[in-house]
Amino acid sequence: MKLSKCIAVTVLGACLGFTSTASANSDAVAKDGTVKVPPFSMPMSSYASDAAGPYWHKIVSMPGLPLSADIEKLRVHYDAMNKARADLMLDMYDVTIENSTVAGVPVKIVEPVGGAVEGKLLINLHGGAFLWGAGNGELVEAIPIAALSGYRVMTVDYRQGPEHVFPAASQDVFAVYQEMLKSYDARHIGIYGCSAGGILTAQATAWIIREGAPVPGAIGTFCGSGVDYAGDSSQLDPVYGGATPVSEGGMPLTMMRLPYFNSVKEASAIVTPGDFPETLAKFPPTLLLAGSRDFAASAVTIMQRRLAGVGVPSKLYLFDGFWHAFFMDAEIPESQEAFDLIVGFFKAHLGDG
Amino acid sequence: MKLSKCIAVTVLGACLGFTSTASANSDAVAKDGTVKVPPFSMPMSSYASDAAGPYWHKIVSMPGLPLSADIEKLRVHYDAMNKARADLMLDMYDVTIENSTVAGVPVKIVEPVGGAVEGKLLINLHGGAFLWGAGNGELVEAIPIAALSGYRVMTVDYRQGPEHVFPAASQDVFAVYQEMLKSYDARHIGIYGCSAGGILTAQATAWIIREGAPVPGAIGTFCGSGVDYAGDSSQLDPVYGGATPVSEGGMPLTMMRLPYFNSVKEASAIVTPGDFPETLAKFPPTLLLAGSRDFAASAVTIMQRRLAGVGVPSKLYLFDGFWHAFFMDAEIPESQEAFDLIVGFFKAHLGDG
Repeated sequence: MKLSKCIAVTVLGACLGFTSTASANSDAVAKDGTVKVPPFSMPMSSYASDAAGPYWHKIVSMPGLPLSADIEKLRVHYDAMNKARADLMLDMYDVTIENSTVAGVPVKIVEPVGGAVEGKLLINLHGGAFLWGAGNGELVEAIPIAALSGYRVMTVDYRQGPEHVFPAASQDVFAVYQEMLKSYDARHIGIYGCSAGGILTAQATAWIIREGAPVPGAIGTFCGSGVDYAGDSSQLDPVYGGATPVSEGGMPLTMMRLPYFNSVKEASAIVTPGDFPETLAKFPPTLLLAGSRDFAASAVTIMQRRLAGVGVPSKLYLFDGFWHAFFMDAEIPESQEAFDLIVGFFKAHLGDG
Repeated sequence: MKLSKCIAVTVLGACLGFTSTASANSDAVAKDGTVKVPPFSMPMSSYASDAAGPYWHKIVSMPGLPLSADIEKLRVHYDAMNKARADLMLDMYDVTIENSTVAGVPVKIVEPVGGAVEGKLLINLHGGAFLWGAGNGELVEAIPIAALSGYRVMTVDYRQGPEHVFPAASQDVFAVYQEMLKSYDARHIGIYGCSAGGILTAQATAWIIREGAPVPGAIGTFCGSGVDYAGDSSQLDPVYGGATPVSEGGMPLTMMRLPYFNSVKEASAIVTPGDFPETLAKFPPTLLLAGSRDFAASAVTIMQRRLAGVGVPSKLYLFDGFWHAFFMDAEIPESQEAFDLIVGFFKAHLGDG
């Protein structure tokens, strides 16, 4: 019997308990840990529902616009995409939608038909790169959550780039939140959002803490959180679309590259609270959720470890094989599961009364 | 301005809020979602400590043995590897180690010097593919946890393959557990393990439930759990070693391929409790933990979603960029973080008294 180099599948195989007959490449891992990866085919996760693979193909085949496109065209384009999603949700869930203004900020109030639970409020911050998402983008995260929780959901049309820069959105969310504190106990308010909305949820929470206001009862940061995008998932993001990682000539997918953050000159707890333990320690219970193939997956897992490090209760769910913001599409079975997890978390933390 | 196909980084970029200049490949995603991935270089996660990349290179360069090697040679080989790990831990932590026998099963009792907290017990189930790990493999998960928690940790030298088959290990763990119930309240006992030990923790819990005994106060399933290995992480496991996924001619890294499971002829709650909601609903609070590059990462995230689906409290931590059973090496900074999370979870769920 011959000792072999304990490489690749052998490491993760026989060395630690399992083995595979896949070929291994002894020179593949450099001294700094960088791996030379050969070309390969990656099937959809075997744990995902049957809808997942074809859905991924569908998404990848949809017409898109580069971030550098004209801002009005971007907004029209993504609003149409979000309208199709919201229309599907309106077929699935019975809700009422009312446009209003709170503290000078436009909001939409989404409630289950027949009225919402009294005394509880969820504030939803939409996604869209701090560039678009107002309008139908406000509805796609609000409709299923309002219908399934029975809670009133208020979506905030916060100021975005390129016309506005940080901290305009945090200020708008705080203005709405302060106004709502006149009618609701902070412990009965939840704030949540996906992508830019996940980042803004963390930033607005840090803003609330800085202002000395009572923190909400719970928050949910999905597909984005209180640290910038980095780590393995930001490298693998292009890979799942058949391209090479950002380290191979691409620009990293960081939030700091967005026009909205042009005003930010230095690291700060109101920008990336996950990097500032003193602020983070004052966060309320936090739900974190992403697809495992989301470029934000690493950021979300890092944020959760940092919350744990300062003793803040948190809950992390990863959806194996799924992509950024997958649960905007309500017909995917895993989206229903995500809605249930979100609703369950807020019900547990905002109380029943 | 021209509409482009919303592919690859464009999907995960502009379509959803970010963009990258990495090249995209419009034909890369097949109708079933399978992705054709080009060759690329994958750096160590930017979120990982500086030790991680060089450590990964070191592990990959270590001599290994195939799973098909002579069983005695496998045991000697891995015991030497585990002895080096345990020796390092003994330099770092002050514990006492006592060999004993409980209900006819060999155990080791690891306690902090000066004595353990009274009335609490952690039972540790070692890893090693249900083939090896008795001896020093029993110590590597027990030493830091005993020292940092102050609890008594009892490691179980359960029967393994190829000499024994399922459910011998579950029976041994149950025999020890039953005996311990004479001295400890079940609510003050925790069971945990990594890799094969994570699988066995889930299986032994299902066995306890089937026998009608009170479940432990909390369990921890690390680097393995109550569902078989599958999903994205089992595909990507060889990739992180510079090889191609199991779907390209390799054998899948399933637990059912291990000699210990030769006796299993059909799916059952005592084999993969994560597939059986009725049993799963009776699980105690469960901690799940893995490296994001671990072939078990997907299994662990799936198990946690299934626990949530049946209302069992759970907690998931993923360590971005890390590999299978990384925290067996105590000098990695993230291993210390993992120990703290494990200790914190058991302290929260087994009570202070």
